[in-house]
Amino acid sequence: MTWTLTNSALDQENLLINESLFSLGNGYLGVRGNFEEGYQDNFKSIRGTYINAFHDEIQINYGEKLFGFPEKQQKLVNIIDGQAVQIYIDGERFSLFSGEVISYERKLHMDKGFSERIIQWKSPAGKIVKFHFKRLVSFVTKELFLIDLKVEPVTPVNEIKIISTINGDVTNFVDKNDPRVASSHAKLLHVTEVKQEGHINIIKSETENTKLEVACATTSNVSASNYTYETNMTVNGVEEVYIANGPTHFTKFNIYTDTYRHGRSTVEEAITIQNRVKGKSFATLLEQQQRYLNDFWEKADVKISGDQELQQGIRFNLYQLLQSVGKDPYSNISAKGLSGEGYEGHYFWDTEIYIFPVFLMTDAKIAKNLLLHRYSILDSARERAREMGHKKGALFPWRTITGPESSAFFPAGTAQYHISADIAYSFIQYYLVTKDENFLKEYMAEVLFETARLWVDTGHFLNGEFRIDNVTGPDEYTCIVNNNYYTNVMAKHNLLWAAKTYQLLKKKDPLSIEELTERLQLTENEVIEWQEAGEKMFLPYDDNLKITAQDDTFLQKDRWDFDSTPKEKYPLLLHYHPLTLYRYQVCKQADTVLAHFLLEDEQDFETMKNSYDYYEQVTTHDSSLSHCAFSIMASKLGYKDKAYNYFIETARLDLDNTHGNTKDGLHMANMGGTWLAIVYGFAGVRVKESGISFTPSLPEQWTSLEFNVQYQDRLIKVMVEKEKTTYTNLNGEGLEIVHQGEKVYVESGSKIECMN
Amino acid sequence: MTWTLTNSALDQENLLINESLFSLGNGYLGVRGNFEEGYQDNFKSIRGTYINAFHDEIQINYGEKLFGFPEKQQKLVNIIDGQAVQIYIDGERFSLFSGEVISYERKLHMDKGFSERIIQWKSPAGKIVKFHFKRLVSFVTKELFLIDLKVEPVTPVNEIKIISTINGDVTNFVDKNDPRVASSHAKLLHVTEVKQEGHINIIKSETENTKLEVACATTSNVSASNYTYETNMTVNGVEEVYIANGPTHFTKFNIYTDTYRHGRSTVEEAITIQNRVKGKSFATLLEQQQRYLNDFWEKADVKISGDQELQQGIRFNLYQLLQSVGKDPYSNISAKGLSGEGYEGHYFWDTEIYIFPVFLMTDAKIAKNLLLHRYSILDSARERAREMGHKKGALFPWRTITGPESSAFFPAGTAQYHISADIAYSFIQYYLVTKDENFLKEYMAEVLFETARLWVDTGHFLNGEFRIDNVTGPDEYTCIVNNNYYTNVMAKHNLLWAAKTYQLLKKKDPLSIEELTERLQLTENEVIEWQEAGEKMFLPYDDNLKITAQDDTFLQKDRWDFDSTPKEKYPLLLHYHPLTLYRYQVCKQADTVLAHFLLEDEQDFETMKNSYDYYEQVTTHDSSLSHCAFSIMASKLGYKDKAYNYFIETARLDLDNTHGNTKDGLHMANMGGTWLAIVYGFAGVRVKESGISFTPSLPEQWTSLEFNVQYQDRLIKVMVEKEKTTYTNLNGEGLEIVHQGEKVYVESGSKIECMN
Repeated sequence: MTWTLTNSALDQENLLINESLFSLGNGYLGVRGNFEEGYQDNFKSIRGTYINAFHDEIQINYGEKLFGFPEKQQKLVNIIDGQAVQIYIDGERFSLFSGEVISYERKLHMDKGFSERIIQWKSPAGKIVKFHFKRLVSFVTKELFLIDLKVEPVTPVNEIKIISTINGDVTNFVDKNDPRVASSHAKLLHVTEVKQEGHINIIKSETENTKLEVACATTSNVSASNYTYETNMTVNGVEEVYIANGPTHFTKFNIYTDTYRHGRSTVEEAITIQNRVKGKSFATLLEQQQRYLNDFWEKADVKISGDQELQQGIRFNLYQLLQSVGKDPYSNISAKGLSGEGYEGHYFWDTEIYIFPVFLMTDAKIAKNLLLHRYSILDSARERAREMGHKKGALFPWRTITGPESSAFFPAGTAQYHISADIAYSFIQYYLVTKDENFLKEYMAEVLFETARLWVDTGHFLNGEFRIDNVTGPDEYTCIVNNNYYTNVMAKHNLLWAAKTYQLLKKKDPLSIEELTERLQLTENEVIEWQEAGEKMFLPYDDNLKITAQDDTFLQKDRWDFDSTPKEKYPLLLHYHPLTLYRYQVCKQADTVLAHFLLEDEQDFETMKNSYDYYEQVTTHDSSLSHCAFSIMASKLGYKDKAYNYFIETARLDLDNTHGNTKDGLHMANMGGTWLAIVYGFAGVRVKESGISFTPSLPEQWTSLEFNVQYQDRLIKVMVEKEKTTYTNLNGEGLEIVHQGEKVYVESGSKIECMN
Repeated sequence: MTWTLTNSALDQENLLINESLFSLGNGYLGVRGNFEEGYQDNFKSIRGTYINAFHDEIQINYGEKLFGFPEKQQKLVNIIDGQAVQIYIDGERFSLFSGEVISYERKLHMDKGFSERIIQWKSPAGKIVKFHFKRLVSFVTKELFLIDLKVEPVTPVNEIKIISTINGDVTNFVDKNDPRVASSHAKLLHVTEVKQEGHINIIKSETENTKLEVACATTSNVSASNYTYETNMTVNGVEEVYIANGPTHFTKFNIYTDTYRHGRSTVEEAITIQNRVKGKSFATLLEQQQRYLNDFWEKADVKISGDQELQQGIRFNLYQLLQSVGKDPYSNISAKGLSGEGYEGHYFWDTEIYIFPVFLMTDAKIAKNLLLHRYSILDSARERAREMGHKKGALFPWRTITGPESSAFFPAGTAQYHISADIAYSFIQYYLVTKDENFLKEYMAEVLFETARLWVDTGHFLNGEFRIDNVTGPDEYTCIVNNNYYTNVMAKHNLLWAAKTYQLLKKKDPLSIEELTERLQLTENEVIEWQEAGEKMFLPYDDNLKITAQDDTFLQKDRWDFDSTPKEKYPLLLHYHPLTLYRYQVCKQADTVLAHFLLEDEQDFETMKNSYDYYEQVTTHDSSLSHCAFSIMASKLGYKDKAYNYFIETARLDLDNTHGNTKDGLHMANMGGTWLAIVYGFAGVRVKESGISFTPSLPEQWTSLEFNVQYQDRLIKVMVEKEKTTYTNLNGEGLEIVHQGEKVYVESGSKIECMN
């Protein structure tokens, strides 16, 4: 059961949640788990199909618009709907909300890459029929969304009518009162062409403002003892009608193309791809899918023994990450992946801090792609820095798709300058894991230099210390502060690595540094400034509490009155004005604690422990990004129970809908956090200049934990048990690693056992 | 010329500005100085007629809406247009933009209360005609807006056609890119009825959302050797057409009534009032007007000798304040008075800190009315406090008309908690000036108690000091800070006076305090808390600079790079993102310096002087509220030149359009500031518990300064000359005053001379 998600719920709430949980995707295309045949009247459903990065631009309205507020916001568009397949049994429309559901089960197969619904249904008139729906979004042919349906009468049936449609009359979902989903602008896509070519039905649509094109080319076929076929076209879509009898097998091939990947010939490309796949059977396509997934799981699977539910949770999270992460240079991974419209399909720091590491150590090609996407928006980031009054440097947008800042509330948006350091951090991590010198030269140096410039321009020296005023750290319940520890320490890292990269490159590749400095009009003096600002970075510390201070004033504020805050007032952001929240010591999520994880050598153990104890008391975990950081640091600090309990929260957050908004899409960062809590937490993996190290500490509840990490062209299998850890160097040369602080050498192709 | 404003400009820019400068009003009704006959095509004009507090509610749009963000914004509505009078001379339409303007002059008579335009015009066909327009908005019959026109042919003319209209098809002005004027929602008013009753033409309109009614009842008459008359009705208005010959005298009476003042019978009331006034001549009505103004100027005039321009500026500012200030309990005075739509007709702290004192000392009835308006919205303020998470107390809205917070950007809106202390300050000042014990009991106590409660709930003790975190002070270039000095010291005053008021009332009127404490569920313990919080209020101070710190972190920030900021980048808020501004030591306006004026006994002279020197260097005066505070404090600190130069800025800010946005309406607070700079600045008036004191210091440029102050039932004439000041007790009992720190007794009805 750990490879399969199973559900039989038919109530409103669970179905909405299941639309997200059973969503299918491949990083390009995503389809929510809606019922092909539809729902009963007045039933709420967020019906959605998305292409990563395929967006429109909408006007942002402000009650009071100030200089530099973004005029427009990018927004992931709900595209042409290819999900619909209606079935009539002797004239009675099949629905799970009429007649009698004799049996019903829905499954998501994470090892095979498809979902299915198996149904036995008795119609109001008493006809009994079996239905078997299968659907697949292909990892191999990224444009393909396939539906396979078998209808099998149990009692005598004269006529089975199948109406399959593609529909271009689609809108986005809106919710006026939740800041986490869009509040207006539902109609973003308009049909520009509906046509039939041979047996291919085609809709082409265009976005309202960005004028991006998406095409859907559909074919279907039926095998039955005999059947008739007709099609009807409307201005917004095409329907195909099959009338058959006896057991009927229906297959529908939807091919989606878009301007980004297929240029202006979306229709032609869709037809070409359609012609390539339409002859294939579901079984054949599933085989391809499974090969892809075998490969993925071989590298990425994490096995725990001792808890099936958690095992399922981990696999589900990894699977959904794979389904959502962009695999081309046009896309990244959005906060909800391709599973819903929450956060408008935007890319946040979630990518760098929570998701990128997973791919960095399991599929570095995907990881690199995430960085290349950031590199591709560097010019936008430069522009934004100018707009924000910076003479030099690049300020990455808090939320975006193709580069422009899309945040409409700057205190918890643009003010989170740390995103630029977070991106720099990822580039550095990538370099440390891959030692890819070309990457350093081609991309990393430029990103580090431009972000370092930002910090020098943002901060200033006071009494010999370099200070960064007026930013917001990760904790969005405390906005616009001076010297946020997280920001400062990440900026320090960014600055020192920029200087280091400069020196490295200057030594190894003087021509390339010459070219780069000229292109960026960079002076040696700037590099000295980076070094100096980094070295002199002010890191706030409280002498009395012996903890890292979250910022200059956090610890002087009054503590939130947790005792008088009833449970239903959480998440606080939905019940208190931001000003009220800012006034108190209350954290939405890990801030300082996260910084202690990311840059653990900046503080001594006691400070980190004291800080953990302190901030844990005032953290609500209202953000889904919080638990994993607390879990990882708990592992480090020896809080085994806490490490485990926080981990549980991450592992099943969406499966158990603990944040109550899984319907709007899955929490991708948290899903990455599950992996982080295992690999960085329980196994204590760190990658630094000195190499890779492990400090395993298995939860009491488990008997073993097994996973792989890719590191400098090796694939290392790590098996953590109670007493010992076994490292197997699956491929690549021999490698020195550090286990519990001790250097250990793992020969190529062999394994070594170390006592924990 | 100091009683008259004269202008002959006909260019686009000046005409727009003059629409504000030549606006007429009476505190109820306001009419911008638009041309009756209209402009040339494509000419920009902000045509406006307003009733104080008559507003609609519009939805506020947010890109990201968080809890407690106001859903709706109140907005002053541009009402039915009664200004239009077109004239045709032998079929040629009169316009100052066709034919030849032989002579043209426009005048505003501040002593008499009307404006006029005197024109000699040659039509394209060569006919020469004189026009004399006069208009008046009556202080006596507040509903009346009167237009009087004489047309006198100089060369032979056969036919003079006058088309006079009232038009209900009106919209509000919008400017998408200036946060200081509205960006959307132009059409707020719809005509619900157009009719004629006898010779009265009537339009009734209703606001879109608030469903408030406004009616305009118009009559007109012509005297000419002979004429014909006809009327035409449309769905949105009525036109009257007179065809006359020979010299023609036309008069138009517009009567405006509204729901607030005339209930649901606006039309009937308008007709009744129309019938009362329509027989009267312009001369008769002007006589009434002049009596009213004589009375006003007798009390309020400020005479300076030595500078005619400044004398004119002062009178203009006082006159416009009188025209704009609400004189009934439904209204207050909006930031632009009734002269334009800037800031949506909202009432801000401008009232309390900049305008209220003028009336307090010249016409206490108007001053009291301003306070009663605040008292009337106390329930809204309580509600808002709950919404902002406060268990007790009242939080006054940063901008409002009838009470609800209308600010759409909380860092420079709702976060300005000081407005509650500002209002408390005014109540206290009123009490000190009037010693009105009834007022204290009926209104002041409750306002002080509820605002004191707010401070106790907002702040907290840390190391024995009471601190207020997370508010914005007056300086909007530095938002959301801890322990803003201005806020803290004003809150201290508020708290201590609340406690004092409680004790006073308990002693003098135990029954009434009993009633009040019961009604407010107030405990003695709370009063102790107020006293303690007030006494222990933390007031930030910098030991090195020996200045008052604007807040906890202001002085640690980097200084704005003024040298590299070109002139055209001011005002900074139109060229820099708020986050950029917040990051630096740069002030939009007086903040600490203002606090030092309002509560001068809180700091020693040296601290105030050092602070002045320091903050002056980083203040841009981008707010029109800044100069007067700097002028007043300069007077106090002995910076005579600065006092004078800042004063000049206030006195002619609108007349010279130095802020570039006079077209959107006049800067009311600055206009009050002119008076403040004279009375509190040059004459050094202060009113404290100990009494009234004067510390005159006449600018070198003047030979004398004369004004009156009302104080505890006396009217005192103050005549400041170079060497001496003469105090005349015009009415009331004898009074002890303080002159230059020395007590002086001024007998009833007599005068006393004191050396400066």
